[in-house]
Amino acid sequence: MSVFTPVRPEELALWLKRYAVGSLVALEGIAEGIENTNYFVTTTQGRFVLTLFEKLTAAELPFYLGLMAHLADHGVPSARPIAALDDRTLGELNGKPAALVSFLPGRPVTRPGAAHCAAVGTVLAEIHLAGNTYAGRLENPRGPKWWRETASKVAAVLPAEDAALLREELRVQSLYRFQDLPRGAIHGDLFLDNVFFEDARVSGVIDFYFACTDVLLYDVAIAANDWCLADGADLDEARVRALLSAYHAVRPLNAIERGAWPILLRAAALRFWISRLHDLHFPRAGPLTHAKDPEHCKRILQTHIAAMPRRSRLWV
Amino acid sequence: MSVFTPVRPEELALWLKRYAVGSLVALEGIAEGIENTNYFVTTTQGRFVLTLFEKLTAAELPFYLGLMAHLADHGVPSARPIAALDDRTLGELNGKPAALVSFLPGRPVTRPGAAHCAAVGTVLAEIHLAGNTYAGRLENPRGPKWWRETASKVAAVLPAEDAALLREELRVQSLYRFQDLPRGAIHGDLFLDNVFFEDARVSGVIDFYFACTDVLLYDVAIAANDWCLADGADLDEARVRALLSAYHAVRPLNAIERGAWPILLRAAALRFWISRLHDLHFPRAGPLTHAKDPEHCKRILQTHIAAMPRRSRLWV
Repeated sequence: MSVFTPVRPEELALWLKRYAVGSLVALEGIAEGIENTNYFVTTTQGRFVLTLFEKLTAAELPFYLGLMAHLADHGVPSARPIAALDDRTLGELNGKPAALVSFLPGRPVTRPGAAHCAAVGTVLAEIHLAGNTYAGRLENPRGPKWWRETASKVAAVLPAEDAALLREELRVQSLYRFQDLPRGAIHGDLFLDNVFFEDARVSGVIDFYFACTDVLLYDVAIAANDWCLADGADLDEARVRALLSAYHAVRPLNAIERGAWPILLRAAALRFWISRLHDLHFPRAGPLTHAKDPEHCKRILQTHIAAMPRRSRLWV
Repeated sequence: MSVFTPVRPEELALWLKRYAVGSLVALEGIAEGIENTNYFVTTTQGRFVLTLFEKLTAAELPFYLGLMAHLADHGVPSARPIAALDDRTLGELNGKPAALVSFLPGRPVTRPGAAHCAAVGTVLAEIHLAGNTYAGRLENPRGPKWWRETASKVAAVLPAEDAALLREELRVQSLYRFQDLPRGAIHGDLFLDNVFFEDARVSGVIDFYFACTDVLLYDVAIAANDWCLADGADLDEARVRALLSAYHAVRPLNAIERGAWPILLRAAALRFWISRLHDLHFPRAGPLTHAKDPEHCKRILQTHIAAMPRRSRLWV
């Protein structure tokens, strides 16, 4: 279970007195999540999630919390940071920056169909539209500069052919500059487990702690690499069409975005391959964590590279 | 049904394009409510309530919508106004000021017990605490000045003894000045039908369109006159204790408030007697409305007057 920093009920009951959320009824650690400590919190007034930030600092967090509040203000079903009586959404608990956010109903899907992908395409486009008026700005901390730095760190412990693949993909990506693509606030991590469904409806979008200001279509590519994955690490064309068509219906994509799609799919696979390699080879200390398999992302990248010649036909 | 201004699905579907809430699935008029037009709105992204304001103007509405957003920000289960893509929560539809607010689960209770009254006491105190940092200010439009003006209008059509009761209560109330009582943002209309429950938990507080800046304990008195009512228009002592104790545990009441309680109960009954008399004798034009019975409020007022000598013993 990913509880790095334990919280006792009596500590939380006291801490909650600075909020207008009623009194503590129940506290339960959440197994999911590899970056932060999360608890389900039930009060006399409702259900919430308590997050203790293990790596992010009080200086970085306002961008994320502000974005979540901004999206929730606009009717996007994102978790909302709750303001304390002093109007702050960011507090401190047991030495860690901490926030109480709204509980969202529903559950992640594990085998998404085309209808799920369409629903995710719609909500991601709504996030990008609503984010248009968000004043916060944050250059992607896991952008190309971080790719290069982290890749050189992990390459030293990789088999030679993996290290070569990594270097070659960094070289290819460096040939592309996407300054003309629409940019804005992106989720940055819209994998299956960060979207909750009730029946066919998206009931929740969580975990905005990789959000940043970046290319909007890159966000779609990150989602596609998880939501539209078929057996054998290739993308399922029907689900990609469903995702992109639904997205396009809310935020129409332009010709430059169309051209950039195949290389953005590769960039998205590369970014998560690098971070998973890093998590595997340089794990953090902590009582209980589960690292994710980097090989999975490598195979997706390899499949995208092999599929480049026909990627343009995968378009809507 | 209280739908004063009809809205067709095709009109709403177009109007919703200025929001990030997905596309329209269903639209259904709401029977409850005597002041505004309300519809349930279901989109691909969730459920909402559309309110068209029949009397309130775009100048008055920011106080109410801002308060609802402020309370929801703080984890109070109040309906939240949804921001459009231009960040505004107030729009216009079919010639009326209009807002889309979040849907709240649960249902009103019709026969509240002591546990319900305690839950309402807690949430009302949380509203008052959270409201402490709300910057909006609005003198009560239905305060003593409005009582006097409206009473002189309705007195002309009342039986002589009712007119005399009204005049006498206005005289008594005018002897009291509550400048030393804690003031702030109050709901102003926390009747049974404005609170939703899921099991024993308050899941929603709605209809903030009588909210204003006024004496906090007056808000509790308004609630007590509905939540704690026993047969025969008197208050049920057990439920009053439950309401006040729960409130007091969150926002401790002071000695001045204790002394003011009996006269605030009378003021609360008077205010609703006057407004119901006005609604009955000077009804608005509109396709479908239901006026509430003023006699009910008159009996509560008369019972409070008769009970004055023992009211201090009804205290927690």
